[in-house]
Amino acid sequence: MSERRLSSITADVLPAIARGAAILGTGGGGDPYIGRLLAAEAIRQHGPIPLVDPQDLPDDAVVLPVALMGAPTVMVEKVPTVDQLSSAILALARYLGVTPTHVACIEVGGANSTIPMVAAAQLGLPLVDGDGMGRAFPEIQMVMPTLSGISCTPMSFADEKGNVGVVDTIDNTWAERLTRPVAVQMGSSMIVSNYAMTGAQVRESFIPHTLSLSHELGSLVEDARASLSDPVAAVVQRLGGAELLSGKVVDVSRRTVAGFARGEARIEGLDADLGHELVLGFQNEHLLATRNGTPIVSTPDLIMVLDSETGEPITTETLRYGQRVRVISCPSDERWHTEDGIALVGPRYFGYDVDPVRSPVTATAG
Amino acid sequence: MSERRLSSITADVLPAIARGAAILGTGGGGDPYIGRLLAAEAIRQHGPIPLVDPQDLPDDAVVLPVALMGAPTVMVEKVPTVDQLSSAILALARYLGVTPTHVACIEVGGANSTIPMVAAAQLGLPLVDGDGMGRAFPEIQMVMPTLSGISCTPMSFADEKGNVGVVDTIDNTWAERLTRPVAVQMGSSMIVSNYAMTGAQVRESFIPHTLSLSHELGSLVEDARASLSDPVAAVVQRLGGAELLSGKVVDVSRRTVAGFARGEARIEGLDADLGHELVLGFQNEHLLATRNGTPIVSTPDLIMVLDSETGEPITTETLRYGQRVRVISCPSDERWHTEDGIALVGPRYFGYDVDPVRSPVTATAG
Repeated sequence: MSERRLSSITADVLPAIARGAAILGTGGGGDPYIGRLLAAEAIRQHGPIPLVDPQDLPDDAVVLPVALMGAPTVMVEKVPTVDQLSSAILALARYLGVTPTHVACIEVGGANSTIPMVAAAQLGLPLVDGDGMGRAFPEIQMVMPTLSGISCTPMSFADEKGNVGVVDTIDNTWAERLTRPVAVQMGSSMIVSNYAMTGAQVRESFIPHTLSLSHELGSLVEDARASLSDPVAAVVQRLGGAELLSGKVVDVSRRTVAGFARGEARIEGLDADLGHELVLGFQNEHLLATRNGTPIVSTPDLIMVLDSETGEPITTETLRYGQRVRVISCPSDERWHTEDGIALVGPRYFGYDVDPVRSPVTATAG
Repeated sequence: MSERRLSSITADVLPAIARGAAILGTGGGGDPYIGRLLAAEAIRQHGPIPLVDPQDLPDDAVVLPVALMGAPTVMVEKVPTVDQLSSAILALARYLGVTPTHVACIEVGGANSTIPMVAAAQLGLPLVDGDGMGRAFPEIQMVMPTLSGISCTPMSFADEKGNVGVVDTIDNTWAERLTRPVAVQMGSSMIVSNYAMTGAQVRESFIPHTLSLSHELGSLVEDARASLSDPVAAVVQRLGGAELLSGKVVDVSRRTVAGFARGEARIEGLDADLGHELVLGFQNEHLLATRNGTPIVSTPDLIMVLDSETGEPITTETLRYGQRVRVISCPSDERWHTEDGIALVGPRYFGYDVDPVRSPVTATAG
């Protein structure tokens, strides 16, 4: 498989990265449009952002990931500020007594791939080409570094008003327990910096090259549209996954509870070959696809909803009645399918009483 | 008025201080028995704790108060650990980049007067003779330093498991908003260190000598019992207050909500001279005494419930049906009666739609 690696993020690759990241974000990670606007402005002010392959990180690099934590439903109206991003990173650096050398993304997703760009640009630091999940997940302990025994904390948080804080907990689940209600108080959305890592730890525990992959996926969609071919098929082929349903959203129940956007979407099939109906369960991200009560794909594999015609990814907070969509899936990083991985992000953790179901696969391109 | 100042806390003065502090704690500040046991053990291990008059503090002293935050109903079963106390102080010192020189009490109250002793003993630091309220109040912004414009934050918190954190907020109300749900997650009780102050700031904003006063009140109760005179009358006289009712607790409704012990106690008078009934409203502390629907004393003045015979203070979480009690009141520090003081701790803040009502006064002793 030929991969195209980016060496820096410029204004012209930004739309493709944002789109591709929102595809890999499986419905979560926040609105790609807002994150893209913030990143475009940051690049305009500070110039292109150097992108570093994890393999090229010095062992002792000080890598501080930054992300938006909370309900993406809220983030659409409550846009993070540039100061909020750097104050989260600087609060963590202050507590740790370190000077950061690199910024990183903890997940791929609409906003959570672009927000770290803004912070990197403002702080004048390069960004790591990779992330801690290879997709998006709703809770902060749900990252590959947890499987490597890397602590989430000290973890900082910041709101747009100037409030910041740090927690230093005995395990990553306690970090989630103590910061989720803070996120709720901060208006169900805040900026966090956690999983401070050395370069060596990033190499061991990150999913590499996911920003380059996002760029590639976003470009495939763009190219397919330009050549009047099928953008969704191009994405499915590149990811080695499958299309589950082509249809219309007929029902969405969505609640913003405990700082999450939770709910269920019902999609009626318009293409008899693929089946008649699909129900998607989500908590920020799509977690389970069922057909006639039978699970057909579940977390940790990726379930994505794209616009039928344009291939544009649709995040869970923007799903609505009448949308023509295609539901696709693809395998997650294999490390998520280990026993520890399933315990952390398998369907049962989210309250779905089913065994994990893997995505159908096709041969990958290239 | 002749005051007896203590210069150190030894094992033999501890019971009187704990009792007197629980009297001034107006029902809050946590169980005096548990705090006293912890302090006694700390003194046994580390020796007497030097007590410093605020007037004698160097201007640049680094004073870190420490306190228990949460519902006193919970603290009875969930005793803080010695490590928890010092880790809260050390987390704050680390974030501030300072070395503490003194420990202080943020309020007077059963546990919150004795817990700082434990921390001072373990860290080998002297304790300030004074506190930030001259009584106890339930929320963290409700201290005299707030009226002097001193920031509550950076503020640290710690649980008994080893989880710690710091918040650094734009005002003291945000500190309360962000840390209260953390206290709930930590089991409705945690140790905090906040209002880091210089010696000069302590002199300006503390209520001085409240540990010495606690010792004096506790000793008065002890002496009255020994001489078979009336301990409650001795306390009333020393505080220049009044007795509101002598009676029996006939009803207590108490809920532990949002990390507080909230409720109401109904006391039926046994002494016709003082009236037939009194209803006390509390949120950790007693805040309002009403008779036949008319408020007779309210916060910020002190409302205290003592055992009829022994004069022993009864905290709100141990109030129960059948107790023979005497309800007394006395004036608070005059600074609480300013416009800013009333806005911060007046009855309306607590949801009681009444103007503040001052305690009846009598001439003070000595």
